[in-house]
Amino acid sequence: MSDVFALACDLIARPSVTPDDAGCQQLIAQRLQRAGFAIEHLRFGEVDNLWATHGSGDGPVLVLLGHTDVVPPGPRDAWASDPFAPEVRDGMLYGRGTADMKGSVAAFVVALENFVAAHPGHAGTVALLLTSDEEGDAVDGVRKVADLFRERGQRIDWCITGEPSSKAMLGDLLRVGRRGTLSATLTVKGIQGHVAYPEKARNPIHQALRALAGLAWKQWDAGYESFPPTSLQISNFNAGTGANNVIPGEAKLLFNLRYNPHWTAAQLEAECENLLREYGLEFDLHWHRGGEPFYTPEGPLRAAAREVLARFAGAAPEESTGGGTSDARFIAPLGAQCIEVGPVNASIHKVDEHVRVADLEALPDLYLALLERLLAQPLRDAASAG
Amino acid sequence: MSDVFALACDLIARPSVTPDDAGCQQLIAQRLQRAGFAIEHLRFGEVDNLWATHGSGDGPVLVLLGHTDVVPPGPRDAWASDPFAPEVRDGMLYGRGTADMKGSVAAFVVALENFVAAHPGHAGTVALLLTSDEEGDAVDGVRKVADLFRERGQRIDWCITGEPSSKAMLGDLLRVGRRGTLSATLTVKGIQGHVAYPEKARNPIHQALRALAGLAWKQWDAGYESFPPTSLQISNFNAGTGANNVIPGEAKLLFNLRYNPHWTAAQLEAECENLLREYGLEFDLHWHRGGEPFYTPEGPLRAAAREVLARFAGAAPEESTGGGTSDARFIAPLGAQCIEVGPVNASIHKVDEHVRVADLEALPDLYLALLERLLAQPLRDAASAG
Repeated sequence: MSDVFALACDLIARPSVTPDDAGCQQLIAQRLQRAGFAIEHLRFGEVDNLWATHGSGDGPVLVLLGHTDVVPPGPRDAWASDPFAPEVRDGMLYGRGTADMKGSVAAFVVALENFVAAHPGHAGTVALLLTSDEEGDAVDGVRKVADLFRERGQRIDWCITGEPSSKAMLGDLLRVGRRGTLSATLTVKGIQGHVAYPEKARNPIHQALRALAGLAWKQWDAGYESFPPTSLQISNFNAGTGANNVIPGEAKLLFNLRYNPHWTAAQLEAECENLLREYGLEFDLHWHRGGEPFYTPEGPLRAAAREVLARFAGAAPEESTGGGTSDARFIAPLGAQCIEVGPVNASIHKVDEHVRVADLEALPDLYLALLERLLAQPLRDAASAG
Repeated sequence: MSDVFALACDLIARPSVTPDDAGCQQLIAQRLQRAGFAIEHLRFGEVDNLWATHGSGDGPVLVLLGHTDVVPPGPRDAWASDPFAPEVRDGMLYGRGTADMKGSVAAFVVALENFVAAHPGHAGTVALLLTSDEEGDAVDGVRKVADLFRERGQRIDWCITGEPSSKAMLGDLLRVGRRGTLSATLTVKGIQGHVAYPEKARNPIHQALRALAGLAWKQWDAGYESFPPTSLQISNFNAGTGANNVIPGEAKLLFNLRYNPHWTAAQLEAECENLLREYGLEFDLHWHRGGEPFYTPEGPLRAAAREVLARFAGAAPEESTGGGTSDARFIAPLGAQCIEVGPVNASIHKVDEHVRVADLEALPDLYLALLERLLAQPLRDAASAG
């Protein structure tokens, strides 16, 4: 049994349903401490965060970013085997978190151990940052750690997130950015009344329809670099008491924007509010900024990753900015270039989540190759070129 | 204490919250039987209906139509006095059902007694039809009775409903029709997905917005005779699970049309379905026909009522087709001309419901005048002229 396989199984066996770390970070900290890493446990509220560093104060800072928490497994009966008892069937390792992302985390640890053993005098600083709050509220996790780093003046040049980014085979996709996410709670106000006397009421549903169509069908942009166009989706619309003879007094909506670096959250908020006002709506609108977009343009990090992934996948990876959000959204604003490289994501958040055993076994070498490409030799200009 | 006041109080003291008759019809049946009426109790499900007739088989059939059930009083504390303990304050009789419509029912009974006593050989047939299911589902009440009448071939020429129709003073408004009501349950189908991948989903809210705006803002007609324009109101719109990152798989709506005799329910249904199809919606649509509109054009019934009301109110009444629905919707399709004449409706369905004692005392004479105007003398052509 390989080292990475054994460690992945140890982590998967810990039922670390978000935001519970269930001892994963303790286990990892012990190993990295033995390997010479400086360990810092950063606990905020119910959330465990681990910050492990190795190297000098000078030179580039490269962070491997991951999470030990998993989404709930749902009903046990829906799974072919216990989600917290890792099991191999037909070359796949099954269990909650195998792909998202305890396999990557185990590979990070093995890669870091091997890297510092082979290159004790490597350039700059290599670090591991883990949280137990990526799948949950994401409030006391990397968001808080980034605030702390900002206070401390902790610089980060490069960040490699182990999120499962691959599509069909390990290394076929390199994530070089993520869209921003912006959520709104909208209350459209009307005047309640009886459906038989519409002239005495003001139907908030009727008032809202055209304005919402304006929002829903607006062409925000035509995309940005490799980003898809900005998109708005109304996810919830609730009005009425169930009775069919009452015009409701208000309508409550939730909508969400996924946006590319063409926009800032503030610009989108103003655009939406103007549009609602143009249609004469009376409304309350509350915004939640889930994360600004980030984008890593061409440079040493992307170049290194492209080369390494091509070696593993046999062809140059697709370089993409698609998908949801990840904790990289909190690291990128610190000035870091961020990429995401991890296993195939087809089964994540589903029952019978799994990772190909061969991919799991290959991952430490993949991450090690990246570390070596970026930090093995003292690179005088690496940080400034990053 | 007058006869009508005493009977109204006896009825109000019975807590006949819909569909419970609480003994009201029994009390009335006994009185009308003593007065020479033929009595028939028609119980359907939990609902009591009373059919009391007096007269020959020939000539016009005039029905006084009412209900003994009342809407729930709500919290006792909100009332100044017990809703089921009738009490006079400042010339008003307070209690649940005083205006809607136990006052009218008591007046019907007294008017009928006086009429048959004064005109034992009156023309045609005079009848009283009461239900205990007007305020509730209206399934086992007059709807069922009308089905029975249709089977029996029971003809009705004229129907006077005692619903509280007056605005500011007794007799200032004569209701000569009611709009129809048609309800729809609409499910708009989409494809569920993640808000980050709108291209893999089909947002049913977005799909629906323009089609619904088309329905909501459509000018159906410009009114009909004294009817207001047909109106559609969306009363309920529900989509989404509460999560702001999920595009829902479907949206559920309720809407209601109040329509004038320009339309039939079938025409409106077809019009709505065509419009939804034009916008390319995928949907399920279920209709509930709450009652076709009715309208009583100029004729002996309207003329008689106009003359009698003018005498009581001091001026010709407004002749209106406004308001919600009433049980007349079930009687009109039998070929009956229908009007509605009753006390002031300002306090109905509210706490501290009341009727002016002077109006209550006047009501039996008002209904008696109508009966005399229409049936006191054998009118050979009344039925055909009706």
